[in-house]
Amino acid sequence: MAASLQMTRRIRRTPYTRRVEQAGVKDFTVVNHMLLPKSFQHTPEEDYWHLRNHVQLWDVSTQRQVQLEGPDAIRLAQWMTPRDLRPLKTGQCMYAPLVDENGGMVNDPVILRLADEKLWMSIADSDVLLWGKGLAAGSNFDVKVTEPDVSPLAVQGPQAGAVLSKVFGPSVTEIGFFRFKWFEFEGTNQLVARSGYSKQGGFEIYLNGSHLGERLWDAIWNAGEPYKIRAGCPNLAERIEAGLLSYGNEFTLENNPLECGLAQYCSLDNDIDSLAADALRTITEEGVERLMRGVLFDPPSDTHIAQPWPVLAGERQVGQVTSGTRSPRLERHVGLSMIDRGFWRAGQKVRVLDPNGCMHHGEISELPFK
Amino acid sequence: MAASLQMTRRIRRTPYTRRVEQAGVKDFTVVNHMLLPKSFQHTPEEDYWHLRNHVQLWDVSTQRQVQLEGPDAIRLAQWMTPRDLRPLKTGQCMYAPLVDENGGMVNDPVILRLADEKLWMSIADSDVLLWGKGLAAGSNFDVKVTEPDVSPLAVQGPQAGAVLSKVFGPSVTEIGFFRFKWFEFEGTNQLVARSGYSKQGGFEIYLNGSHLGERLWDAIWNAGEPYKIRAGCPNLAERIEAGLLSYGNEFTLENNPLECGLAQYCSLDNDIDSLAADALRTITEEGVERLMRGVLFDPPSDTHIAQPWPVLAGERQVGQVTSGTRSPRLERHVGLSMIDRGFWRAGQKVRVLDPNGCMHHGEISELPFK
Repeated sequence: MAASLQMTRRIRRTPYTRRVEQAGVKDFTVVNHMLLPKSFQHTPEEDYWHLRNHVQLWDVSTQRQVQLEGPDAIRLAQWMTPRDLRPLKTGQCMYAPLVDENGGMVNDPVILRLADEKLWMSIADSDVLLWGKGLAAGSNFDVKVTEPDVSPLAVQGPQAGAVLSKVFGPSVTEIGFFRFKWFEFEGTNQLVARSGYSKQGGFEIYLNGSHLGERLWDAIWNAGEPYKIRAGCPNLAERIEAGLLSYGNEFTLENNPLECGLAQYCSLDNDIDSLAADALRTITEEGVERLMRGVLFDPPSDTHIAQPWPVLAGERQVGQVTSGTRSPRLERHVGLSMIDRGFWRAGQKVRVLDPNGCMHHGEISELPFK
Repeated sequence: MAASLQMTRRIRRTPYTRRVEQAGVKDFTVVNHMLLPKSFQHTPEEDYWHLRNHVQLWDVSTQRQVQLEGPDAIRLAQWMTPRDLRPLKTGQCMYAPLVDENGGMVNDPVILRLADEKLWMSIADSDVLLWGKGLAAGSNFDVKVTEPDVSPLAVQGPQAGAVLSKVFGPSVTEIGFFRFKWFEFEGTNQLVARSGYSKQGGFEIYLNGSHLGERLWDAIWNAGEPYKIRAGCPNLAERIEAGLLSYGNEFTLENNPLECGLAQYCSLDNDIDSLAADALRTITEEGVERLMRGVLFDPPSDTHIAQPWPVLAGERQVGQVTSGTRSPRLERHVGLSMIDRGFWRAGQKVRVLDPNGCMHHGEISELPFK
């Protein structure tokens, strides 16, 4: 069903929303109390191929920054994540699950280290600001936890480097993957990272200063016209193929990072003082009961999956497809699902049940999809 | 502009969403990562009069419950709010601002005391779950903070008591204002409170058990048919007239409860161990710089206010209308705005600037609107 989204101040606009509207946005979703565009004039399939071949401009301001600053900034961040943060140097980004004392996922930000005592968590959809502030206030850590006026704008696709070279100069292409550097824009210093929620390569500009939003958008747009730039947004098929998870969709506070397939980001080193340490040791010893996997299946090609579809093996439910859509490249539906132990090997035959009661044959796949 | 809301698992459906769709919902918003209906087939004005004269059924599942349970449940709750919780007895509800260490508003729930060591916070739009968990984990309080499977359904309007008497028996009408009692439904015990986000009287059923959602909806619907029951939602004009605030619209973490007009819920008693105490003492001594007020003004009658409209006195901006709409009763637009000191007396002449650059004459009003 199609329902409209009623706009109010509480559903925050971004520094780019007016441009996004001018570009013909059709659908939004709400992430971190803020608008995230979900589609423009083209079909998801057209956007998929365009992203893989050209370059797109995405308003991802909803990736709010939670800033930790002060003598205990790193100590608090390490308490929030089981990932070993010692290798995170200034100028680097690191993907890190945030996990509570029970092993439940709170969020899965990219952490950027801005200085010895300052970092940003670029978050998915939950109020990490309140979580961090609560932990800090409870523990009397010497750290300020705030949400700065920073609104990321992503430039994604194979032509992203060519476009941003025209805006920031050619040295932008020398930024290493998951590294960032500072560039001048309109007399201000802005952080540009080589990162993004796609596997097509690209950059994210962490614009500090909402008043510069439209000027930044326009500068990139003008530079991108020869490269066929389009307004876009994270492409569902592309991100599922790549095995990129979405907090709230694939996993919630009810899930631990090991079953999410994030074991490589969970250090059990005794030197790591993480709130989750004890819980994750127990889960590691016991082994997980389910694991994040891909599902390939074949409903009609235009099917949108708006709520979880049960996954069955024989008569038993072994999972649920939490995000899924048609892959233009694989010409099948690709889905993400946690799958029960004993059924998660690649090739396992399953059936996926749609809300109309129809069954669709499929099988389990590795992530990312090949 | 009208944009659609793209549906995914992350935007959680409620136990009543299917019934809401069957009743012809047209608009949603998202609160606490969950769908809140915003309009059905009738105009807001028709719904306004219907609510004042008859009875409506509202899916307010987005009022998620944050449950505090354990020996330190009350201690943690008191740490979270400056309102004196000592008078809150089992069976009572209390509206309480949640305030951080800087005096910033985190949320403004109704707190329900279920037992000596157990309460629910029925929250507005922010992750109080994470805030409470963070404070508890940081302080080693002996309390479990969870989100139970509780989805409030509101029955609002002058006929609410008559309708619910048919569902739960006539003793439901004996519940006092901001009190609750337990009633049997389908073999389960359910909490029914005399409360709701309108001033037309009514009840909220805190349904524990999602699987019972449609049966509860249907039972009330069938009982309500002789009373012209309709599916509805909080009515913007009605709640603004009543001076009911909305977190994220009228106030955010940037605002303190005193400027929100919530001073009567802020105890500065030294015996109250609230995180906000020091900050609120300082603000009280210094006096607030702005105060929540009503604005009466006259744009064209069908104007929807989707983002803040500046309020001017002479050439100076003295506030912004954060929620506003046409009042069918007053036949003018009613708005809520914090107004700068020196300009907040009732009758102060102001002008309100719409996004097209047009000025609309108006004046400051007391809250609630007369």
